[in-house]
Amino acid sequence: MMKRYGSVEAGGTKFICAVGNENNEIIISEAIPTTTYEETIKKVIVFFEKNRVDALAIGSFGPVDLDISSEQYGCILNTPKQGWTNVNIVLPIQKALNIPIFFTTDVNSSAYGEMHLNGCNNLVYYTIGTGIGGSAIQNGVFIGGIGHPEMGHQLIKKHPLDVNFNGVCPLHGDCLEGLASGPSIEARTGKKGQELEINSTVWDIQAYYIAQAILNTTLVIRPELVIVGGGVMSQHHMLDRIKMHFKKLLNNYVTIEDIDKYIKTPSVENNGSATIGNFLLAKNLLIKN
Amino acid sequence: MMKRYGSVEAGGTKFICAVGNENNEIIISEAIPTTTYEETIKKVIVFFEKNRVDALAIGSFGPVDLDISSEQYGCILNTPKQGWTNVNIVLPIQKALNIPIFFTTDVNSSAYGEMHLNGCNNLVYYTIGTGIGGSAIQNGVFIGGIGHPEMGHQLIKKHPLDVNFNGVCPLHGDCLEGLASGPSIEARTGKKGQELEINSTVWDIQAYYIAQAILNTTLVIRPELVIVGGGVMSQHHMLDRIKMHFKKLLNNYVTIEDIDKYIKTPSVENNGSATIGNFLLAKNLLIKN
Ligand SMILES: Nc1ncnc2c1ncn2[C@@H]1O[C@H](COP(=O)(O)OP(=O)(O)O)[C@@H](O)[C@H]1O
Ligand SMILES: Nc1ncnc2c1ncn2[C@@H]1O[C@H](COP(=O)(O)OP(=O)(O)O)[C@@H](O)[C@H]1O
Ligand SMILES: [Zn+2]
Ligand SMILES: [Zn+2]
Repeated sequence: MMKRYGSVEAGGTKFICAVGNENNEIIISEAIPTTTYEETIKKVIVFFEKNRVDALAIGSFGPVDLDISSEQYGCILNTPKQGWTNVNIVLPIQKALNIPIFFTTDVNSSAYGEMHLNGCNNLVYYTIGTGIGGSAIQNGVFIGGIGHPEMGHQLIKKHPLDVNFNGVCPLHGDCLEGLASGPSIEARTGKKGQELEINSTVWDIQAYYIAQAILNTTLVIRPELVIVGGGVMSQHHMLDRIKMHFKKLLNNYVTIEDIDKYIKTPSVENNGSATIGNFLLAKNLLIKN
Repeated sequence: MMKRYGSVEAGGTKFICAVGNENNEIIISEAIPTTTYEETIKKVIVFFEKNRVDALAIGSFGPVDLDISSEQYGCILNTPKQGWTNVNIVLPIQKALNIPIFFTTDVNSSAYGEMHLNGCNNLVYYTIGTGIGGSAIQNGVFIGGIGHPEMGHQLIKKHPLDVNFNGVCPLHGDCLEGLASGPSIEARTGKKGQELEINSTVWDIQAYYIAQAILNTTLVIRPELVIVGGGVMSQHHMLDRIKMHFKKLLNNYVTIEDIDKYIKTPSVENNGSATIGNFLLAKNLLIKN
């Protein structure tokens, strides 16, 4: 019989549940608003009780505990989202459905999907939205020794036209997220990214920072491919700006054969690569068992 | 019969050849001055013809081609060292000795040795010398998708007292290596690191940059342990300065249980961990075959 795989994209605004077939095609999906922990998880369980799957992968907003040997495995850790700190989002679903569950970060799910869609084994994924998240895969294995990456908080150099801006990260001020996330645009200009005129120098400043992040992970990890997604990247001019800065900053130090194939936006709209990534991660559980 | 393993630390000044036993003890070693390519490799071969080993690992200055499927595998690539660009340092040794050879970067060898000496599986290694090199290991596997890391050229934020210094990297100016390598000290002060007074603010500036590099790789890779070695770290006060800046910059964003166990200098003096790393990497070749 054809197997069915489940995906949960656990986000701060909504939990997207989906069921896929062996070909990663979505059979049914539902967006559940993120309300209280109990109510949200209950609705996820109800969805999968109605729509049975053989295995499930959950990609969650973070930080999360991914260490299977830890007591907190499956928990969302210290999140600013009220009522969601130290709640376990794997255990109750596992108990109710009694199927294998793979638990990871939302960016890891997206990265895994993109790896498959691009047919490669080594990739870095950045999402530039309300926060900045990052994921890396080497030879099909997620990078993250004692925890998942937190690439959004790396430190980078200031743009000459941005020296007086202190950044919006509550913890670090001018880390990457503090300087290049969506809210940093609003802090600089008083306008949301979707409203800011295309010829504002702020775009170039943002692109300069994102290019540095890509450069740093290029030099640390040496991936085959870098995907940049998230709300801010819906500005289509951003990709070219990032590539331009990346090229200039790298100055040919390592060989990137074709920059248009090296830095790309996601293959599927609306973070659909996370769903596919989850289907594949769920499938892996059955292969391994 | 006891096996014997060989180590070559191929450096710009000297090639250190060593033979070790099953317990990673050095039986004999010799430092061969790095002169011409032909002469140096010839002497390495003569050493191992006199002192036979069952397998050999070479940790080389770089950049090098580590891709076994590449035609240039075993070559030193574009190096400023005259006469050493595009020379193959594996092939002639392999032909002469006819034993399995593992080829990697000098920092990878050191990192592998430190992994063993510290009994861990996930680690980052930085060396702060004439240049800055970096290596990372996850679950015993070197990180480096389409090539070895080049962490020395990552970009970081400027120290407020260092804004007018442009850095010494010929390619990037103020990348990490441009700002925190040994030669950057000389460029700022006119004095070599070994001559600079201990109360110079330059030490604090250097430590600030090295701390940022450790922070960035902490957030990208999440290692268990970070080792910092190289000539500049012979200044024993540097380790404490680096830890102080690291703590302040990280601002508890991810949990580091004990910083004194997290950031350390190498376990063996004079880069001896590279020799042990090479013995282990050579041993692996026989286990795998
Ligand atoms: N078209 C757009 N252009 C620029 N910025 C945008 C656009 N759409 C959303 N953003 C910004 O991206 C951020 C939201 O990121 P998004 O990836 O959509 O969601 P989230 O990160 O909250 O999951 C907000 O700061 C928003 O202003
Ligand atoms: N005791 C010391 N204090 C500070 N800097 C030092 C010291 N010893 C060496 N250095 C500096 O470190 C650099 C050499 O680094 P080293 O790791 O010894 O060799 P290399 O990187 O060339 O293999 C030089 O710039 C030198 O000035
Ligand atoms: Zn931050
Ligand atoms: Zn550089």
